[in-house]
Amino acid sequence: MTTASPVHVRALVFDVFGTVVDWRSAIVRDGRALAAANGLAVDWEAFADAWRAGYQPAMQRVRSGAVGWTTIDRLHREILESLLPRFGLASLDERERDALNRVWHRLDPWPDVVAGLARLKRRYTIATLSNGNVSLLVDMAKRAGLPWDTVLSAELFGHYKPDREVYLGAARVLDVAPAELLMVAAHPSDLAAAAQAGLRTAYVPRPLEYGPGGGLHDAPGDQTFDLVAADFGALADQLGA
Amino acid sequence: MTTASPVHVRALVFDVFGTVVDWRSAIVRDGRALAAANGLAVDWEAFADAWRAGYQPAMQRVRSGAVGWTTIDRLHREILESLLPRFGLASLDERERDALNRVWHRLDPWPDVVAGLARLKRRYTIATLSNGNVSLLVDMAKRAGLPWDTVLSAELFGHYKPDREVYLGAARVLDVAPAELLMVAAHPSDLAAAAQAGLRTAYVPRPLEYGPGGGLHDAPGDQTFDLVAADFGALADQLGA
Repeated sequence: MTTASPVHVRALVFDVFGTVVDWRSAIVRDGRALAAANGLAVDWEAFADAWRAGYQPAMQRVRSGAVGWTTIDRLHREILESLLPRFGLASLDERERDALNRVWHRLDPWPDVVAGLARLKRRYTIATLSNGNVSLLVDMAKRAGLPWDTVLSAELFGHYKPDREVYLGAARVLDVAPAELLMVAAHPSDLAAAAQAGLRTAYVPRPLEYGPGGGLHDAPGDQTFDLVAADFGALADQLGA
Repeated sequence: MTTASPVHVRALVFDVFGTVVDWRSAIVRDGRALAAANGLAVDWEAFADAWRAGYQPAMQRVRSGAVGWTTIDRLHREILESLLPRFGLASLDERERDALNRVWHRLDPWPDVVAGLARLKRRYTIATLSNGNVSLLVDMAKRAGLPWDTVLSAELFGHYKPDREVYLGAARVLDVAPAELLMVAAHPSDLAAAAQAGLRTAYVPRPLEYGPGGGLHDAPGDQTFDLVAADFGALADQLGA
């Protein structure tokens, strides 16, 4: 893992789940509240990891064309339904299932995010570039105070990352060349696809994504990035923002 | 022109040119600066009106399928090229033409807009729903401090208003029913198409859009709206925001 020369970009797009927000802690938080209200005993850390583990296979069914376009809200719900019996949650009613599914709209940012984005926004256009659907990302931003210039989502391009249409679509609607667009992510696989599409890349590892001791599920190996930063404050430092 | 019963909506989308921003004054402002720097004498008010008058016919070529998808930046540039000789501006070089064309990214909001949007944003999701392209709307919002939750544009739906795909596309990505979405515009024709698609409507007349004494180019006649407000502050009052 190495970094190349300084980058000159006009806009930054950010992966969201894991990079901007801590999905695991929110699922555990809201799950525990739900279990307490219902007198249930659930291993919410294992539940969160199982829910997230269903995410890539669910999107792959869309990418492959096996099913038509399906939002992440809907995919999350389908995965949730499949997990409820295994985790002793089959008694949840429709209202509770819907509320639990919407926890993905209520994720909290990592501690450096809001201040770092505010700095970056002064100098660059900043946008999401997430597989999350638009309404999910808008709800999250309103609740958490994420100061995006706009919300870009796979939903707007009809393709899920890492399909190149997503990265090139973002460059097109932001009216920048791919090489003028910096993809920021905690996942090297996302950055590899962005680089393949001609974008510049910033790797911000989030070692707590899978909890204390969870490690990096998507490790960089010998992959090269244009920038590597410990958090969004350090990224702003490197980009002169 | 009448108003119906109170509306219960979850999100608001806004027409931009004329409704949120005063396009005419900015063109006159930047045009005069350009003319002064080049020793040119131009009737910038007439120029602004002519540029705007080319807008609907240019979009109609896209709507009709006569040409493929073309952004407003590109359509503005094509109209601009056609106007330059008539207004004694044929001597402008490429850099000057491009800078003048981008005046549409530098439009100022009407005086009530920023404070009104800030109030509305606390209670509702607020987004653009403009024929302007995404990068134009993002540049405008950054410069003017327009606090959109996200930028929605005809560009994202591959159709120009008043095609119904634009209104229904906005409801779909915001995950609200059409009847839960309020279209805010200074142009009754836009609102008529929104209502036809099932949206609720708020009419905010902007009598200065065509300058002092310019009048309303798109008058309401006997059309009905869900809300009528003198400005965005009055709209926030009516919506309890």
